[in-house]
Amino acid sequence: MTETQRGDLRFCLYTCFAPGGPLGTPWNHPGNKGFDYLNLDHQTKLAQALEAARFDAIFWADFSGVHDTYKSSPATAIRDAVAFPLGDPLVLTAALAGATENLGFAFSANMTQQHPYSFARRVATLDHLTRGRVAWNIVTSYQPSAWRNSGFDDMEGHAKRYVRAQEYVDVLRKLLVDSWEDGAVVRDIDRGIYADPARVHPIAHDGEFYRVPGIGLTEPSPQRMPVTFQAGSSNDGREFSARNAEAMFIGTNSPQDAQTLISDMTGRLSANGRSREDIVFLQYMAVHVVSTEEEAKRKHEELDEQAGSEAAIAFASSTMGTDLSQIDLDKPLAEHNTDSMQGILKGFAESAEDKSWTFRDMVRKIGSDRIVGTPEHIADELQKWSDAGVDGININTQDVENTYTFLEHAVPVLQQRGLMQREYRNGTLRDKLFRR
Amino acid sequence: MTETQRGDLRFCLYTCFAPGGPLGTPWNHPGNKGFDYLNLDHQTKLAQALEAARFDAIFWADFSGVHDTYKSSPATAIRDAVAFPLGDPLVLTAALAGATENLGFAFSANMTQQHPYSFARRVATLDHLTRGRVAWNIVTSYQPSAWRNSGFDDMEGHAKRYVRAQEYVDVLRKLLVDSWEDGAVVRDIDRGIYADPARVHPIAHDGEFYRVPGIGLTEPSPQRMPVTFQAGSSNDGREFSARNAEAMFIGTNSPQDAQTLISDMTGRLSANGRSREDIVFLQYMAVHVVSTEEEAKRKHEELDEQAGSEAAIAFASSTMGTDLSQIDLDKPLAEHNTDSMQGILKGFAESAEDKSWTFRDMVRKIGSDRIVGTPEHIADELQKWSDAGVDGININTQDVENTYTFLEHAVPVLQQRGLMQREYRNGTLRDKLFRR
Repeated sequence: MTETQRGDLRFCLYTCFAPGGPLGTPWNHPGNKGFDYLNLDHQTKLAQALEAARFDAIFWADFSGVHDTYKSSPATAIRDAVAFPLGDPLVLTAALAGATENLGFAFSANMTQQHPYSFARRVATLDHLTRGRVAWNIVTSYQPSAWRNSGFDDMEGHAKRYVRAQEYVDVLRKLLVDSWEDGAVVRDIDRGIYADPARVHPIAHDGEFYRVPGIGLTEPSPQRMPVTFQAGSSNDGREFSARNAEAMFIGTNSPQDAQTLISDMTGRLSANGRSREDIVFLQYMAVHVVSTEEEAKRKHEELDEQAGSEAAIAFASSTMGTDLSQIDLDKPLAEHNTDSMQGILKGFAESAEDKSWTFRDMVRKIGSDRIVGTPEHIADELQKWSDAGVDGININTQDVENTYTFLEHAVPVLQQRGLMQREYRNGTLRDKLFRR
Repeated sequence: MTETQRGDLRFCLYTCFAPGGPLGTPWNHPGNKGFDYLNLDHQTKLAQALEAARFDAIFWADFSGVHDTYKSSPATAIRDAVAFPLGDPLVLTAALAGATENLGFAFSANMTQQHPYSFARRVATLDHLTRGRVAWNIVTSYQPSAWRNSGFDDMEGHAKRYVRAQEYVDVLRKLLVDSWEDGAVVRDIDRGIYADPARVHPIAHDGEFYRVPGIGLTEPSPQRMPVTFQAGSSNDGREFSARNAEAMFIGTNSPQDAQTLISDMTGRLSANGRSREDIVFLQYMAVHVVSTEEEAKRKHEELDEQAGSEAAIAFASSTMGTDLSQIDLDKPLAEHNTDSMQGILKGFAESAEDKSWTFRDMVRKIGSDRIVGTPEHIADELQKWSDAGVDGININTQDVENTYTFLEHAVPVLQQRGLMQREYRNGTLRDKLFRR
């Protein structure tokens, strides 16, 4: 079917529909200079370049609120453009449909944004117009501002959010898969029958969070359900993935840790009547292409500085749900009274390997999973993840110039090594992703 | 600025993102044969043809539910594809953004579909990616199934729907216009300031239906608010238009009636501190291009038959909110006991000019506003509407083949007569539509 060997990795580009493009690098980084996220020509050029390089998909992280935990204010997020302002990645997906043929689109969307009934129509339309190339990263928003602005009194707790997400997915599946039988669309021109009413069924969903009595508004799309992504690594998140995800986005610290997680997930999949083959594991990885040791050293220094910046602290405050401005970030952990700290912060402090570290060092470490090197070095490193059983990489090239450098210099080497496909498979994104 | 004279009419193509394309003609009409509504290539070709002909916009009617009032069942809507199944016109708008430069996109969307907070982000993204070419037709859905499937216990009453719509528009305006001051986006690369927090404000909206404390997620788009369309002609609808609409979609029965409505609206606009120049009136009109008298006669017969078909009866049942299958459609009105009928049906019967008519004749009359003739005849007729003060036509060409015939044969005549623009104005859709 294709020349590529089975052992190749899937490649997604991890990015965000926000100033500067990829997440984690300042919007005003020199490498982002030529890129305007709201300019469709720029986005189209990028998508076409990814397709020419045979990337599997572009992946958009997304948020429905503002990262305003830090200093209890959105000021840092607004000033430093911390994943903000944010365009809607569903809209961008549609805008890129006609300019591409094989690239997949994995957009994040959480349940606060809209009712599953109208979301079902939206994703089905996207799946039709892209001819089956969409994936949905199922997000349970952790931003209180996203919930409060969307008509909820307040953010729901972690466990309850997953219960809600499960029902949301169930409703979507009923509308997109169950409501219309295969063959319900007849298109009998002579008899004037478009669809057979006997094969279109009301879903009669009546749950804890949603009630949808009627039928799905859209006819079956190429994939029916979008390919489902999920990223949560907590116990709830893993259980949710074991039940629902076809792609799990993981952020382990080493190939060994990935192996452990995959092994854990294999058990959970089995407990849910699924198997290892029903899911792909995509490891997060920041990757920078450089030519020399000296260049690598400078790049690491630059990235370390970014990873400890106020923008990074504001982002970490939001993801941790605790305001890091309330503590001295540059005092060694040993000098903090961690016993008096709250749960998350305390756990964060206790996870430090070295008590001479500061909180800023700790935040910096969050963003330190990266490969910086020549194309050959990058290939060597990614080979280790492949050997550990990881199916693909959700790659963060962090600035747009580096993205193009990666496509030009690293991709040919990865393809030569058999680590990356040279041609797309036929079929839908699901067919392609599972190498059918 | 352009050669076109000020007196030209605006032209929108009235259609629907459903099988067969334009609304009101069977999906299996021979003229719809070559068109697959879910094929983006077909939609792109149509949009580009409209742009080449200098149409102002494409207008999508839309529904969030199924027309299931007739026989208390969705069966007719499913079988005959009565504005069903339905793609999402917002998604199609985005998909056509990159393939066009000047064409406007007027999509319908009602308040049941999503919370105004996430809708604001969606329309702002569309406005950015199209460089300011979107319009929103504000719809207060009259379909009980749309409400019940979207998390509401039941459809709200007519008056309450307009109150909700007003608040929905208010929230949207606060997020898209008030939240971000002009100049809030600084993009100061050297100082690393993307936006000035002092100029981005929480909207603190706390109303009857919605509570949105925070700031808008998107930076200001070219138009900020999409151009607002509104179609309701009831007293509530007119008041709503007088307050909010920049384009009012009207369906009067004659140029004289249009003049009366425009005069009424001018008073209402004035009472709301607005003027006649702040709004454009777009008259609905079905138009068919034919070459001979004989052809015109045949076309009228065909259209009369369609207008009295079961699909048309099912659609009318839904718009009237009353099940027309419960009465004998082919018995003269004089023989019905109209006194015992319910409000809407009774009013409908009493509006008949001739008691020898049947209910089917009455439904047929709903769909009878049309021009069938040569390009010259079409121009003569449209001139009358222009003379009556109408600003434009929301034209329903009803089948795709006729759409292309209209573009090829009628448009040149209309342009020659100065009834249609030969070139687009510069600027956003708002600039273009108001001929600035």
